[in-house]
Amino acid sequence: MTTKTIAVARDLLATNKQAAAAIRAELRARGILGVNLLSSPGSGKTALLEALADRFRGRLRLAVIEGDIETERDAERIRAKGVPAWQITTGGACHLEAKMIGEVLGRVPAAVDLLFIENVGNLVCPASYDLGEDLRLVLLSSPEGDDKPAKYPQAFLSADALVLTKSDLLPYLPFDPQRAAAEARRIKPGLRVFNVSALCGEGLEELAAYLVEALERVRSGRA
Amino acid sequence: MTTKTIAVARDLLATNKQAAAAIRAELRARGILGVNLLSSPGSGKTALLEALADRFRGRLRLAVIEGDIETERDAERIRAKGVPAWQITTGGACHLEAKMIGEVLGRVPAAVDLLFIENVGNLVCPASYDLGEDLRLVLLSSPEGDDKPAKYPQAFLSADALVLTKSDLLPYLPFDPQRAAAEARRIKPGLRVFNVSALCGEGLEELAAYLVEALERVRSGRA
Repeated sequence: MTTKTIAVARDLLATNKQAAAAIRAELRARGILGVNLLSSPGSGKTALLEALADRFRGRLRLAVIEGDIETERDAERIRAKGVPAWQITTGGACHLEAKMIGEVLGRVPAAVDLLFIENVGNLVCPASYDLGEDLRLVLLSSPEGDDKPAKYPQAFLSADALVLTKSDLLPYLPFDPQRAAAEARRIKPGLRVFNVSALCGEGLEELAAYLVEALERVRSGRA
Repeated sequence: MTTKTIAVARDLLATNKQAAAAIRAELRARGILGVNLLSSPGSGKTALLEALADRFRGRLRLAVIEGDIETERDAERIRAKGVPAWQITTGGACHLEAKMIGEVLGRVPAAVDLLFIENVGNLVCPASYDLGEDLRLVLLSSPEGDDKPAKYPQAFLSADALVLTKSDLLPYLPFDPQRAAAEARRIKPGLRVFNVSALCGEGLEELAAYLVEALERVRSGRA
C-alpha cells in the first residue's frame, strides 16, 4: 500500500470506531445484545439465525440486520420466521461499517433482546470493522476445512466465540472439529467453541445459553 | 465512500490494470496460459489444482502462484505434487494484485504451459483485480448453496467459467447445480459451467480439455 492509501485506511477505521462506540452505548442503554456474525459465503449464517429464531420464539425477541452485496434474500428468509429484518445492500463493498448499522438502528423496535448483524460473507475484510456489537461470532462450516483459522487469522482473533457449523455433514468430510478448535485457539487462546447443526439442532441449546448469558451481562452492566 | 477514498481506489485499480497488461503480454510472449482462480475460503481451489496436477502429469507442465493472508500451506501441498509453487502471503490484504504477481513472474521457469494463480479465499475483493491472466475461473462448492451468484455478482460476471466443486457431496445437500448454473448465467449469459469433484474425478476431463483449448488459443495468438 502507498502512504496515501494507508492514511485513508487509517482515517476510515478511526471514523468507524467512533460510530461503533456510539452504537454500543445506545444498544447497552436499551438493554439489547448486539451480535455480529462473520464467516465465508455459505457457512450457514442465515440458517443459524433461522434456527435461533425457532429456538427463542416466545422467549426472547430477535431482530436482524442483514448485510449483502446484492439481493434482499436473507432478510426475506428471516422475516418468514416472524423476526423483523432490515437488509443493507452494500452494492459491491466487501463488509459492513458501523455507519450503515447506525442508519438502521432507529428502526429497531424498543422491545428487542437480541440484535443480530449478519455481515457480508467474507472471512477477511469484516474482521477489521467494529459494528458496535458486544459479541462477535465467527462461523466455520465443516466443508470449508479445519485449516482455515491459521489462514484467515484476524477473523478468529477478533471473535468472542467460534461456531463450527454443518456438523451434520461430518460423516462425509475429512473435517476434524477438534483440530479446527485447536487451530483457532492457537490464534486466540481460550476461545469458546460450539459444534452446531442448524439442520439437526445439535449444539443449539449450548449456543442459545451462551447468548442468554451475554444478554444478562449487558443488562447488568457487566458487558 | 468519501471522494478521497474513491479517488484512491480508482488510482489503485488504474495502476493494477497497467501491471496486469504487462504480465499478460509477457505470459503470451512466453506461450504460457495464466489462470486466475477465485472463490470463497474452502471451496476447493487447492484440491482442484492437486487433481489437475495428477491429470496433467507427463503431458503439460504446471506452475502455481499461491495467495494467502498467512501460511505456506497451500504452496507446500502443490509442491508435494511435484509442481513448482510460490507462496505470496498478503499479511492481511484481502486479494492479490498484479504487482505481486509481477514480482514472482521472473522465477517461473521457461518450460511452463499453465500458470495457475490461486487467489486469496474471498468471493468479493479479488474480482476487481486483473492479474494479467487469460482465463478466470470462479469456483463454487456445493455446500455453499446455489444462491451465491446473485449475492456475489462481480466474481461471476468477471469469470470465463464457473467450476461447481465438491459434486461428490451432492447426495447430502440441497444444492441444485442446474439452479446454480442458471443463476450465474443470469449474471453472465453463456458462462461455461463445469461440475467437478476433485475427490472422485468427475468433470476433470472436461475441465482439462477446456484448459488445453485455452492454451492453444494463447499459443496461436487468438487469446
